[in-house]
Amino acid sequence: MLECIVTKFGGSSLANDEQFRKVRSILELEPTRQYLVPSAPGKRFPSDDKVTDLLYACYDLASSGKDYEHLFVRIRERYLSIAQQLHLKVDIEAALDEVSRGIGEDKSRDWVASRGEYLCGLLIADYLGWRFVDAVEGVRFHDDGTLDDEKTQELLSGILKDGKPSVVPGFYGARADGEVVTFSRGGSDITGALVARAVNADVYENWTDVSGFLMADPRIVENPAEISSITYKELRELSHMGASVLHEDAMFPVHRAGIPTNIRNTNKPYHPGTLISRNAPNEASVPTITGIAGHKGYSVIYVEKNMMNSEVGFGRKVLALLEEYGISFEHMPTGIDSMCVVVKSELLAPHRDEVISRMEKLVEGSGSVAVNDNMSIIATVGRGMVHNCGTAARLFSAMSRARINVRMIDQGSSELSIIVGVNDSDFEATVRAIYHEFVG
Amino acid sequence: MLECIVTKFGGSSLANDEQFRKVRSILELEPTRQYLVPSAPGKRFPSDDKVTDLLYACYDLASSGKDYEHLFVRIRERYLSIAQQLHLKVDIEAALDEVSRGIGEDKSRDWVASRGEYLCGLLIADYLGWRFVDAVEGVRFHDDGTLDDEKTQELLSGILKDGKPSVVPGFYGARADGEVVTFSRGGSDITGALVARAVNADVYENWTDVSGFLMADPRIVENPAEISSITYKELRELSHMGASVLHEDAMFPVHRAGIPTNIRNTNKPYHPGTLISRNAPNEASVPTITGIAGHKGYSVIYVEKNMMNSEVGFGRKVLALLEEYGISFEHMPTGIDSMCVVVKSELLAPHRDEVISRMEKLVEGSGSVAVNDNMSIIATVGRGMVHNCGTAARLFSAMSRARINVRMIDQGSSELSIIVGVNDSDFEATVRAIYHEFVG
Repeated sequence: MLECIVTKFGGSSLANDEQFRKVRSILELEPTRQYLVPSAPGKRFPSDDKVTDLLYACYDLASSGKDYEHLFVRIRERYLSIAQQLHLKVDIEAALDEVSRGIGEDKSRDWVASRGEYLCGLLIADYLGWRFVDAVEGVRFHDDGTLDDEKTQELLSGILKDGKPSVVPGFYGARADGEVVTFSRGGSDITGALVARAVNADVYENWTDVSGFLMADPRIVENPAEISSITYKELRELSHMGASVLHEDAMFPVHRAGIPTNIRNTNKPYHPGTLISRNAPNEASVPTITGIAGHKGYSVIYVEKNMMNSEVGFGRKVLALLEEYGISFEHMPTGIDSMCVVVKSELLAPHRDEVISRMEKLVEGSGSVAVNDNMSIIATVGRGMVHNCGTAARLFSAMSRARINVRMIDQGSSELSIIVGVNDSDFEATVRAIYHEFVG
Repeated sequence: MLECIVTKFGGSSLANDEQFRKVRSILELEPTRQYLVPSAPGKRFPSDDKVTDLLYACYDLASSGKDYEHLFVRIRERYLSIAQQLHLKVDIEAALDEVSRGIGEDKSRDWVASRGEYLCGLLIADYLGWRFVDAVEGVRFHDDGTLDDEKTQELLSGILKDGKPSVVPGFYGARADGEVVTFSRGGSDITGALVARAVNADVYENWTDVSGFLMADPRIVENPAEISSITYKELRELSHMGASVLHEDAMFPVHRAGIPTNIRNTNKPYHPGTLISRNAPNEASVPTITGIAGHKGYSVIYVEKNMMNSEVGFGRKVLALLEEYGISFEHMPTGIDSMCVVVKSELLAPHRDEVISRMEKLVEGSGSVAVNDNMSIIATVGRGMVHNCGTAARLFSAMSRARINVRMIDQGSSELSIIVGVNDSDFEATVRAIYHEFVG
């Protein structure tokens, strides 16, 4: 049985004709790469513009009645240059004119933004000699702007079932009435995942400009190692703490369908990148930890109440109160007469006084409420932890040697992470101490 | 200013005339010991009966119409023997006759049970030459059988404000209509605390047959060290895990009033015992850990749900469901797509299938629910932890050396305990590993 691979190429992988050539040679390396989801052309150099940003800027100018053509010229040049360099036959000028006209004719913001991927898809399909499938035909949104997951699966699998190599532009789709709707920024990842699910791909390759995920933030740890293999669950834990280069919503369709995602580097096509799968199978050796991620800016709401523990429902009341203000909790360490609720400071800030005074009423006469800010949370994630009874010992020993005080520990829910809370001022030192303990 | 000490003597401290002599010499050692709350005479030797048990047995016989006098004789002998040996003048025979008559006349179960302390109070007051204050005059219960805390404070402080040395029998009081009501077993500790609060004592001395609390369960750790000083909060954490010799409700009146409790040994009157206070003040050196306590028999309800974390209120819904079945939660480790609720297995057992199937509905289509039993929870408690950033490291290193796998960690609520979850089969080894790491 032949394999089937869906590829998604990010903006930097399609920034100019040179990148287009790399994409084609990557596809030629592996003929089972039969589907391609392009982003809009990204930056060619650090100070360059992304086409999508230019499109938004044109839209803003047009909608306030100003001239946008001087800006649209830069978009035009990007696409024309690629088409000329690669001797493409597709009438990209006509397509560009139509976009420009659309901007002037009050087309929606989503429609304007989506044209970056649309035009890029036209070019790459022509260059590869593949079929172009407009995403408005395959990706369906509900009227409220959320994805119609079921209908999308039905439409995409219907169109793609003939097995013809196809290009489906990322980032957008349409409502039943044909009105274009986009995902949030970075949403081409989602389109790629939806196409992978529709054709029941063996692998969903997400080509970027990095050779996979790093074990820690390179702004904190010097030259962190790359993650060669990670499970979707581990990635969720890390990406929740801000460590992801992948759109969160892009993981679920493929995760649920059991399709692994492979993060690859267009500029290093032979590097295996990071493989994300449901269960990392057949591993000769699992590293103890897979990655470290963390965030500053958490607040700890400390609620003390005599005999709290014998009062069934007290914890629920505290959470219900937070819920009224739309504040989700991250962790909830529980003592006998006290509990802590750890929340993002930015979620608490707008309601701080009200929340505290209402909690004080909950414990009236027999307790107290206090809030401590400036806590960082660091998640050390690894499916290998469960096999290794010394992980917690090593982690806390490393922190102790670095003279870091542990404000909070939470472990046990997933058996694949240990969460520690430290003062914001200890954040970077904690990440480094843990990294060097486990990675070297 | 003279100190004022309230003493409470447990059943073994008043089991016979020899113990009565010890009590008197303890009081004579320190003339500021001006109030005494006695329990009913306890066991003189391991196979002996407690008077209270005999009283309950008499009540049971009488209420099913059987003869109880053959059993009451044993109660009679206990009191008569003490009175004779100590040459007491009080007419204890008449008082015993009245109790026996009361049992035959269908007096309430609480009334019958309370006579152990009542009679013991008559004897000890006579022996000391102190005033006898019947607890029905000073300890007031609501009609629903719960303590009327405010009225009790008013009554007791009114009676005792003249400063006369007094004996107030423990364990019982009365409703406004005069009907006798008892606390739960061990409730003399509560009476002692209420008297201490009423006279605003400097210390509440709780005299028992042990020289204070031990740092760990002596059935698990050989010859554990005694705790010389502990805060009420620390004790609550330990006693919740089953490590207490003190009635929980007995701590709050004195804790709130800022009165320290001193656990003392009637058989070793010069041993300082354990001092329980609100804040352990003026400590030259705080031991890192104060005590270790734990329990087997917890269940972990593991709830997994995609995108749980972005759903405000999911945690609250899970707790609300448990609350419907009267199940309080002990801990709640939280991941990104999963949460665990740790509950006592015995609370879950009667509703297990129903709880699981309703939780499964909560996560329907995008998650799963599983229950793991046989988890032990061990609390390592110490106000010294907060000053010592290596505590967690030492604790987990000790567990790691003992090859114990950590199933759960919860720290952060009180900053004075680290909670770990391990398999029941690792329970004793964990307690020993932690004890030997910190105590030696």
